[in-house]
Amino acid sequence: MQKTDRRKLTMSQVMLPNQANVAGNVHGGEIMKLMDSTAYATAMKYSKSNVVTARVDELEFHAPIFVGAMVTCTGTIAYVGRSSMEVIVTVDVEDLETDEPPRRALTAYFTMVALDRMGRPRSVPELNIETEDEKKLFEEGEKRYLSRKVKKEK
Amino acid sequence: MQKTDRRKLTMSQVMLPNQANVAGNVHGGEIMKLMDSTAYATAMKYSKSNVVTARVDELEFHAPIFVGAMVTCTGTIAYVGRSSMEVIVTVDVEDLETDEPPRRALTAYFTMVALDRMGRPRSVPELNIETEDEKKLFEEGEKRYLSRKVKKEK
Amino acid sequence: MQKTDRRKLTMSQVMLPNQANVAGNVHGGEIMKLMDSTAYATAMKYSKSNVVTARVDELEFHAPIFVGAMVTCTGTIAYVGRSSMEVIVTVDVEDLETDEPPRRALTAYFTMVALDRMGRPRSVPELNIETEDEKKLFEEGEKRYLSRKVKKEK
Amino acid sequence: MQKTDRRKLTMSQVMLPNQANVAGNVHGGEIMKLMDSTAYATAMKYSKSNVVTARVDELEFHAPIFVGAMVTCTGTIAYVGRSSMEVIVTVDVEDLETDEPPRRALTAYFTMVALDRMGRPRSVPELNIETEDEKKLFEEGEKRYLSRKVKKEK
Amino acid sequence: MQKTDRRKLTMSQVMLPNQANVAGNVHGGEIMKLMDSTAYATAMKYSKSNVVTARVDELEFHAPIFVGAMVTCTGTIAYVGRSSMEVIVTVDVEDLETDEPPRRALTAYFTMVALDRMGRPRSVPELNIETEDEKKLFEEGEKRYLSRKVKKEK
Amino acid sequence: MQKTDRRKLTMSQVMLPNQANVAGNVHGGEIMKLMDSTAYATAMKYSKSNVVTARVDELEFHAPIFVGAMVTCTGTIAYVGRSSMEVIVTVDVEDLETDEPPRRALTAYFTMVALDRMGRPRSVPELNIETEDEKKLFEEGEKRYLSRKVKKEK
Repeated sequence: MQKTDRRKLTMSQVMLPNQANVAGNVHGGEIMKLMDSTAYATAMKYSKSNVVTARVDELEFHAPIFVGAMVTCTGTIAYVGRSSMEVIVTVDVEDLETDEPPRRALTAYFTMVALDRMGRPRSVPELNIETEDEKKLFEEGEKRYLSRKVKKEK
Repeated sequence: MQKTDRRKLTMSQVMLPNQANVAGNVHGGEIMKLMDSTAYATAMKYSKSNVVTARVDELEFHAPIFVGAMVTCTGTIAYVGRSSMEVIVTVDVEDLETDEPPRRALTAYFTMVALDRMGRPRSVPELNIETEDEKKLFEEGEKRYLSRKVKKEK
Repeated sequence: MQKTDRRKLTMSQVMLPNQANVAGNVHGGEIMKLMDSTAYATAMKYSKSNVVTARVDELEFHAPIFVGAMVTCTGTIAYVGRSSMEVIVTVDVEDLETDEPPRRALTAYFTMVALDRMGRPRSVPELNIETEDEKKLFEEGEKRYLSRKVKKEK
Repeated sequence: MQKTDRRKLTMSQVMLPNQANVAGNVHGGEIMKLMDSTAYATAMKYSKSNVVTARVDELEFHAPIFVGAMVTCTGTIAYVGRSSMEVIVTVDVEDLETDEPPRRALTAYFTMVALDRMGRPRSVPELNIETEDEKKLFEEGEKRYLSRKVKKEK
Repeated sequence: MQKTDRRKLTMSQVMLPNQANVAGNVHGGEIMKLMDSTAYATAMKYSKSNVVTARVDELEFHAPIFVGAMVTCTGTIAYVGRSSMEVIVTVDVEDLETDEPPRRALTAYFTMVALDRMGRPRSVPELNIETEDEKKLFEEGEKRYLSRKVKKEK
Repeated sequence: MQKTDRRKLTMSQVMLPNQANVAGNVHGGEIMKLMDSTAYATAMKYSKSNVVTARVDELEFHAPIFVGAMVTCTGTIAYVGRSSMEVIVTVDVEDLETDEPPRRALTAYFTMVALDRMGRPRSVPELNIETEDEKKLFEEGEKRYLSRKVKKEK
C-alpha cells in the first residue's frame, strides 16, 4: 500500500496505443495528465481535504516515453505553506521485458491548494520534518515558493 | 520502484468520472481492464517476454468502487508451469480524504502464457521459492492449475 | 430487435484502433468490459431491475481478436437463484471482408445480483424452462452455483 | 449471428456516462459515430471490400437518447450502384428495466463507396431483389441516388 | 476570440491516433462528432439558449483526413426560423508541416432547435441581414428549410 | 483559417463530461493536454518540421473551467533559439449562453524543439520581428530562455 508514508504516493500504468501522439510515442499531454493526477492524490492524501492545482513549474521532459512502457509517477510533498503544498512529481519509465533499471523521464513542481467545502483556501497540517533530506527538501521548496511570490508581485 | 521483487508489481490510479457505469459507480469492466493490465505487466516482468491472457478465474467483486477512489492493483506470481504463469490480482481501494485503511475490493486468478516472437508458447523461468508463504502460494496455485486442466479435459 | 427472447441479448461492435493493446491486437480488458456490459444488460432485461456483477468464472480466451473485427457478445440466462442470475457470455468474431463464419473467441460465466432501490438484493422471476436444452443449461448452472457456494464457505 | 442476411447487420451497445453531452443526454455526435460504424460494417459485409463513407443524408433525430439506454443500430443495403451502396441506418432505443418496446430514435441514409487496394472505387455485387419490399426499397434508393446526382451536377 | 461575429464560430484540433478508423485514417464518425459540437456551439452562441440537433443534411466527405492533420470546423448561421436555426458546417484540413493551404474536407447542413428550461422549443432572435452574401445565404437556407418541410409532410 | 499569421495558432473545443475531474469541473490534466497540443501545432506550423515538448514553465491556473465551456487555446511564438522555440500558450473560456466576454483561465510557456527525420535537433527559421510588441515579446522570451539555461547549468 502507498499509505505508509503520508507525504509520498506513487501511481503506475502501462502506456497503451490510445495514448499515443502523432509520432507514435506517448502524448506529452497524457503524461502531464498523469502527473496532475499524482499531484492531486498526493496533496489530498496529505491534507485530507479537496485540492486544486494552482501552478506547474519547471516541468522537464528528459526522455521520450514509448507505448508499452511501465510508467511510475511519484509525488512527494516538499514544502507546505498555510494552504498551499508543493508536490515534486517525478516520472520513471521501465521496459518490463528487459532487466534495465527504470529511467527518469520527467520532473516537475506542482503547487496545490487545499479548499474547504465552500471552495475557499483552508490551512493544511504543518510538515513534520525529521531527517536531513526532508529539511533540505523543505528549504529548497520554500526558496522556490518565495521566488514565485516575488515574481508574481512584480 | 516496483522492480525490487521480481514476482510482484503494483499499478495505481485515481478513478475518474469517465470510468463510471450507468449507476455512477466505477464500471466493473474498467476495473477488469485494470486487472488485466496488471496481470499482463506482472507476467511480462517475471518472464521477460511477451505474454497473453489465457484465462481468468474466480474474479470476485467484494465491494463497489466509487469515482474519486484511489485504486491499487497488485499482481503476484503464485504458480509457474512450463509456459504459463498464474497471477493473483488483488484490487484495494482507499478514500484519500479519510484516514481509513484501504479495503479489498476485488480478487482474481489470471493465467498468462509467455509467447516467443512467432507467437508460440515459450518456457518461463522456474519460480524461486524461499519462504513458507511462497511455498503455500505455489502449492495452492498448482492445485488450481491441475483442477482447471482436469476440467478442460472432460 | 433483441427483445423477443427475454433471457437472451446480443451486443455487437467493430473493434477500433483505440481499443488495441501494446501488441496491436484488441486489449483483453476491452473485451472483458464488453462482456461485463453484456452480462449487465442481459440480467437487467431479465429481472427488470438494477443489477451488479458479483463474480466472473472460467473466462477463457480461445483466440486473439484483431482491430477491424466485428465482435458479437451474447448473454444467456442459464440459472436463476433467489436474487442472483448466472449469465453465460460468449464472444464471436468475424472478419466482414471474408465469407468465413464467425469464430468463438471467448466464453465466461457472470454471476449478477438484482438490487432494489436501497441497494439490497431483491428476488428475481423464476426461470421459465420449456425445452430440454434449457433444462440442461439450468442444471449445469445450478451445479456451478452450488460448487461456488461450497468453495466460498470453506 | 448477424451473417444470415447479407444485406443487413445490427450493432448494439448500452450508453455510458462518458458518451454524454453537456446536458447529460447521449451526445448526438456519439450516435452519429455509431451509425457511421454500422454503415461501414454493413457495406463491408455486403461488398466484401474496404469501404468509405461518401455522404450522409436526411439524418433525423426523432427522440433524445439517455445514458443507460440500450441502443440498436441497424444497417440495410437499400440500393446499389456500380461502386456505391446506399445503407439505411436506423437507431432504436429501449429501456431494459421496463417492458416498453424499443422506440425509433434516429434514421439516416449513408452512401458508402467500395475501394480496391489502391484506394480506387471498385464495383460491388448487384443487389439480389426477391420480395416486393426489397423492390420498393431499391426503387426509392435509386430515386434518392439520382436526385443527389442531379443536385451535384448543378 | 471567436466572439466578434455572433453568427460564426470555429473549432480546431489536431487529429490523434485514438481517433483513427480501422484503415488508419481519421474515423468519419469522429469528424461528424466534431461537426455536431461545432453546430451546437454556433447555435448556442447565436441564440443564447440550450440547443439540440434536429437534422443533418447533405453531409459530404470531399477528402480523407489523416492522423496529425489540423482540422478546423466552421459553423455559420445561414437561416433562422421561429425556433430552428440552420448551421452550415465546413471542415478544412491542413498539414502544418507544409506550406499548402487548407483543403475543404467536409460540408453539411445542421438544423438546430433552441429549447427553454422545460425542453420546449423557444423562439430565437431574427437574423440581422446586412450584406448581399448574407442575403443569399439566408434565401438558400430558407429554400432548403421549406423543401425539408414539404418532404416531411408527404 | 489560422494560417494568416505564421507565428500564431488557435485551437478551440467545447468541454464535455468525459473530461471532468472527481469534483465535476474540467480535469486540469485535460487542459494541460490541450495546451500541449496547441504548443505542438504552433511550433510545427512555424518551423515546418516535427517538434517535441522539452519544458513547460510557469503554468498558472487563474480560474476553474466548467463542463460546457468553450475553451480557446492560443499559441504564440515568442522567442526562437537555434533549434528551440518558446510558445506562450493562453487559455480563454467563455460561456456561450451568456454575453460575457471570454476570461483568461490559464497561461504557460512551452519550450519546443524542432527535430529532423533522425530525431536530432535541427535549426528553425529566425523570427521576423516587425512591431514593438513583437520585439518586447522576443526580449522577454530571451530573458526566460537564458535564465533557464543558467539554472540548468547549476
